Amino acid sequence: MTLALPPTEAARELVEPVLREAVGRLDPHSARVARYHFGWTDGDGRPRAAGGKALRPTLVVLSARAAGADVERCLPAAAAVELVHAFSLLHDDVMDDDPVRRHRPAAWTVFGRAQAILCGNALLVLAGELLLEQGTSGYVAAARTLDQATLSLIAGQALDLEFQDRDDVTREECLLMSRHKTASLLACACSIGVTAVEGPVPLAAGLAAFGTEAGLAFQLADDLLGIWGKPEVTGKPVLSDLRTRKKSLPVVAALTGRTQAGDRLAELLARPGPLTEADLHDAARLVEQAGGRTWAESEAERRLDAAARCLADADLPADVRTEFLHIAQFIASRDH
Amino acid sequence: MTLALPPTEAARELVEPVLREAVGRLDPHSARVARYHFGWTDGDGRPRAAGGKALRPTLVVLSARAAGADVERCLPAAAAVELVHAFSLLHDDVMDDDPVRRHRPAAWTVFGRAQAILCGNALLVLAGELLLEQGTSGYVAAARTLDQATLSLIAGQALDLEFQDRDDVTREECLLMSRHKTASLLACACSIGVTAVEGPVPLAAGLAAFGTEAGLAFQLADDLLGIWGKPEVTGKPVLSDLRTRKKSLPVVAALTGRTQAGDRLAELLARPGPLTEADLHDAARLVEQAGGRTWAESEAERRLDAAARCLADADLPADVRTEFLHIAQFIASRDH
Repeated sequence: MTLALPPTEAARELVEPVLREAVGRLDPHSARVARYHFGWTDGDGRPRAAGGKALRPTLVVLSARAAGADVERCLPAAAAVELVHAFSLLHDDVMDDDPVRRHRPAAWTVFGRAQAILCGNALLVLAGELLLEQGTSGYVAAARTLDQATLSLIAGQALDLEFQDRDDVTREECLLMSRHKTASLLACACSIGVTAVEGPVPLAAGLAAFGTEAGLAFQLADDLLGIWGKPEVTGKPVLSDLRTRKKSLPVVAALTGRTQAGDRLAELLARPGPLTEADLHDAARLVEQAGGRTWAESEAERRLDAAARCLADADLPADVRTEFLHIAQFIASRDH
Repeated sequence: MTLALPPTEAARELVEPVLREAVGRLDPHSARVARYHFGWTDGDGRPRAAGGKALRPTLVVLSARAAGADVERCLPAAAAVELVHAFSLLHDDVMDDDPVRRHRPAAWTVFGRAQAILCGNALLVLAGELLLEQGTSGYVAAARTLDQATLSLIAGQALDLEFQDRDDVTREECLLMSRHKTASLLACACSIGVTAVEGPVPLAAGLAAFGTEAGLAFQLADDLLGIWGKPEVTGKPVLSDLRTRKKSLPVVAALTGRTQAGDRLAELLARPGPLTEADLHDAARLVEQAGGRTWAESEAERRLDAAARCLADADLPADVRTEFLHIAQFIASRDH
């Protein structure tokens, strides 16, 4: 999903030069794919106006500000988190056979699956190198934080793939998958700035907890958009997650709620062959009737509240707290 | 290719417990694929006698001994290099559509492409974590050495894929590709033990140079085996590299030698559709007639000589020098 962050955040302008320099060190094949993926070039390598909301770099910059540090000191960490995010998108699109990313053809459709995988690998290694070359103990700790988040991300994608072949996925399993796949890197983004600048450990822990809750709210909102989002906002066809029979949180909540509508939804999704447009609209209505939409909306609210409580307990400047909250509300809102 | 290292090397016994502990930390999906890939379990997860020659761990252990250090101190580095090697094999087999690895079905044929890619990713991140958790400056430097080798490995695989679509690959390009794809990780294995135990920088540089030359000799030998190796040794069908039209070093040398046999080889390899057994034997004969085999054999000798000169210039115990040389000769020999 592509969202525009509030214009007050200029993290993208700060981080992009660091990212571009880092990508410039890669082998020509990986660099070409990376520049395309980041939106800096088109498929033929011609420059274009870059896009992207730079959510994660923005969170890293806020994280450094939470520790009272000069923003410049956290830019390698902000770039590294964005590199790992790019790695995961490049690979996920290959694995999920997803041909569209941010309203454009996914990199693998332009450069082939192998080059997309290789580029992802290169970005992952580059992220670690960006952190370690800073040569401080804070940045070594940051590298370990990012490693843990990346392992969690990988575990989440493995669960996501497993769920595709199962019809008995529970809501708890689905939340666990989202915690790994979405929330772990956001938690890392919210805390790694503190770690990199050697700020207080409890502050990093509090911001990571905030990031986890906000990340779950984000995924719930994303899954709601995957069914009811407007194509011009999501960059995907209408009802796209139902089209691919994705076990998203509202769908799983609907399927496991022991309702008649849920049972009919299960039957519909189990049908062989592609679903018709009429089927898709039926499915969306059944998710709603079975309570999946209401549950996801209220669960997102609960997660936002929990995120706010984490922030309230953390020792950080009031303006930074406000900006963190603003972003959490923004990414969990469903009508933009 | 599977080779048995001289029995005097017990690196595998030392490193395997470290590897098993590390793999045990992964998410269950990645751990299952990794245990299969390492030969510890069969496709159903049942234990089996492990195989593998542990060439890279052996080199890391020798590297630590070269610096006069206790071998125990380098075991995380030995395990990390083996993890990166496993990452690259898991991914390469997916990209190359190669169904056989070490005489067994490749992991992706058992667990699917996506799970094999994810497991590779997890092993790559785990390698970095094994190094950083040691908490010494030597191990941070080792992590950066391994990052550089991994980026080189990725660049080599990208070149290898590019070469598949080109018919004008030069011998120099092919050697550069081998330098990235094979020699860089061997150079890292030969030097990272010194780096991890904070041994002399010139010793690490000398051993890296040795590893690069020995690695090129290894690749030349491997490419010769890919054409003339016995299936029971290589674990691949006879003439396997010709079957896949691989731009291996002897083939490229033959194609670019401006000989009649080379031109006929080019015509033969350009034919659409699969090559017959008779075609394959013709192709092998043409590589030989065009001088590809002789060049690869003598180039391997030259690289071995250069490797020996690197060792002669390095300041290390005589017995360690002898063992390094022994391994270089062993991996570059073609009749085992």
